Amino acid sequence: MKIDFSTSNRIIFGCGEFRKIADLIKGWGHRAFVIRGNNPTYGKEFFEIIDGLDLEVTYFKVDKEPDIALLTAAVKLARENKCEFVIGFGGGSVIDTGKAVAALLNNDGDLMDYLEIVGKGLHLENISKPYLAIPSTAGTGSEVTRNAVIDVPEKKVKVSMRNAYMLPKIALVDPELTLGLPKNITATTGMDAFVQVIEPYVCNSPNPMVDMFCRDAIPRAAAKLFLAFQDGSNIKARENMAWVSLMGGLSLANAKLGAVHGFAGPIGGMFHAPHGAICACLLPAVMRVNIENLKNAEPQNASLMRYREIAVWLTNDLKAEVDDSIHFIETLCKSINIPRLHEIGIMEKDFALIVEKSKHSSSMKGNPVQLPDAELTRILELSF
Amino acid sequence: MKIDFSTSNRIIFGCGEFRKIADLIKGWGHRAFVIRGNNPTYGKEFFEIIDGLDLEVTYFKVDKEPDIALLTAAVKLARENKCEFVIGFGGGSVIDTGKAVAALLNNDGDLMDYLEIVGKGLHLENISKPYLAIPSTAGTGSEVTRNAVIDVPEKKVKVSMRNAYMLPKIALVDPELTLGLPKNITATTGMDAFVQVIEPYVCNSPNPMVDMFCRDAIPRAAAKLFLAFQDGSNIKARENMAWVSLMGGLSLANAKLGAVHGFAGPIGGMFHAPHGAICACLLPAVMRVNIENLKNAEPQNASLMRYREIAVWLTNDLKAEVDDSIHFIETLCKSINIPRLHEIGIMEKDFALIVEKSKHSSSMKGNPVQLPDAELTRILELSF
Repeated sequence: MKIDFSTSNRIIFGCGEFRKIADLIKGWGHRAFVIRGNNPTYGKEFFEIIDGLDLEVTYFKVDKEPDIALLTAAVKLARENKCEFVIGFGGGSVIDTGKAVAALLNNDGDLMDYLEIVGKGLHLENISKPYLAIPSTAGTGSEVTRNAVIDVPEKKVKVSMRNAYMLPKIALVDPELTLGLPKNITATTGMDAFVQVIEPYVCNSPNPMVDMFCRDAIPRAAAKLFLAFQDGSNIKARENMAWVSLMGGLSLANAKLGAVHGFAGPIGGMFHAPHGAICACLLPAVMRVNIENLKNAEPQNASLMRYREIAVWLTNDLKAEVDDSIHFIETLCKSINIPRLHEIGIMEKDFALIVEKSKHSSSMKGNPVQLPDAELTRILELSF
Repeated sequence: MKIDFSTSNRIIFGCGEFRKIADLIKGWGHRAFVIRGNNPTYGKEFFEIIDGLDLEVTYFKVDKEPDIALLTAAVKLARENKCEFVIGFGGGSVIDTGKAVAALLNNDGDLMDYLEIVGKGLHLENISKPYLAIPSTAGTGSEVTRNAVIDVPEKKVKVSMRNAYMLPKIALVDPELTLGLPKNITATTGMDAFVQVIEPYVCNSPNPMVDMFCRDAIPRAAAKLFLAFQDGSNIKARENMAWVSLMGGLSLANAKLGAVHGFAGPIGGMFHAPHGAICACLLPAVMRVNIENLKNAEPQNASLMRYREIAVWLTNDLKAEVDDSIHFIETLCKSINIPRLHEIGIMEKDFALIVEKSKHSSSMKGNPVQLPDAELTRILELSF
């Protein structure tokens, strides 16, 4: 048993909790940098509350997955207006933008100084300015992770700015805020959350802390994702999916992942498809190929036993076999209209490059079984 | 579903992890305040590592549950020597002393300014100096809680200094460090940990985060506490009990408790008995009286269903009845020589005052069923 676990200073979860934000940011200062998503009508009540507070607010809109230009503009604006703290309300792109801004408000230098791979990869000297992260989707769990994923379009890659200081000071997860999500976003973000509690559970080096989160969350996702998709106003389903998303964030931040994420990073850099859609699209085939390879090569592998546990939770049938987990996920993906790879802009001719870029990614190293190029390609074919 | 969860910035768990402390405290400064327990031979390798680091170390010994005089002396010494960070290695008393010192190294004023009930109860203005907390017992879980329990002997009470800033920066739980614990300490601290995952699970307002910790920990404690007692060198048993202790700390810091802790605070203030022994001593009777009262008054109460779940985990028998949980705990307590109340210095004539002081304690308010004075007295009689 071994863990090295970090998370936000404080995690608040509950319906209606967003109405208490005044209490949460008490003592943080007067000048707020508030980041929001693209939809002007979404989160109306939330922004009315913000407007009603005695704050000097600088608003910033994030309308795509953050890239260097967008983040540089955000940091510049926040610094010019001497913002003392950050509030981010939105999907993963908004939440991640907030992490970078909160960090750079309290650390000198440019974004590039702190980026891995494309930048200097410097460590942050100072803790971030206080950041209250409030997800509007039930998917990324980014409110409790320590990195911001940043698009570098000219190099067709995504990189991370990563540091324990980037964990938001408070993560506030309010399921009510996800009630208005459209069906397709509910589906892809929900599958993103689902993947994030499956991959750490079957990875090649699980840990007992993350195991708890996954054991709790997998049955909830199995029981509630379709219900949340079918009836977006089902608050119990929304509540469970918001919880799954939070557990996914805690899990992925503190464990390894697997081939779904091993592919998702590079694909996300190469194509303009949302991260959740890519993950959702790949999960059934990754499960199938992983399970087949484990059965052939390592029938006693502990991860295979874990896939069988998952099968039991997914089907609620104590006699479920490991393959039942694949069938469940395949059926679920169909029933909530998860797209195929070709529907999110990927073509067969891209497969070789995707495999090349993905096979050494850090997430791929957590996959329960090492997959040769041919098997990686088969995952893409099965997902096409 | 509702949580408000805080914990240490970073939690590390694993055998042999203590040998990496040099990495953990990197950047914290040169002048360390190192707090240790009473036994000069205990943790020899640990202190050799400390001595081998390029640090200016001020040692401080804690030989009892901390009181105001002890803490005042510790703070004075740490301030005089301009200590930049704190390391605490020991049981709950050592760990709690470290929290108070780390806080007061970065906040002006005296201890009394910050104490609840007997002091001014001021809030800490600044975050604490970095604090690495390393438990040497598997019991309190104090490395991940936000309060220090302080004895006020002249008033015969225990009070807390409590603030989210008091969460240690790093909690390092290394089961190897508990290998040398004597049998009686293994027993009472182990039962303390066990109580701390039972009470939050059956309390009147459980939360889903803490539920996970308790569900994971209760079966481990049931399977391993006797083994750790029987053979102190059984590292698997030690590892599981260290994990249970950590889960107990996370649970009690983020949920309500019940009658065991409702009694333990006041009894600890009145008598010089170790907290773990008091808790261990009371658990069987609290379970019995709670279950009997729930059965009579509220047979549909959710906590009663949870006691039945616990019975299944404890006995590993899917058909276990709720009463089997009482029998299991009673038998366990006998087999590991948990003392009776009269053996830790409490007399029957004290019962009335204990009940009077305990019945309105904050932990008592979390008990799954409200108990009249006669039933509270019966708990003490059954534990006598």
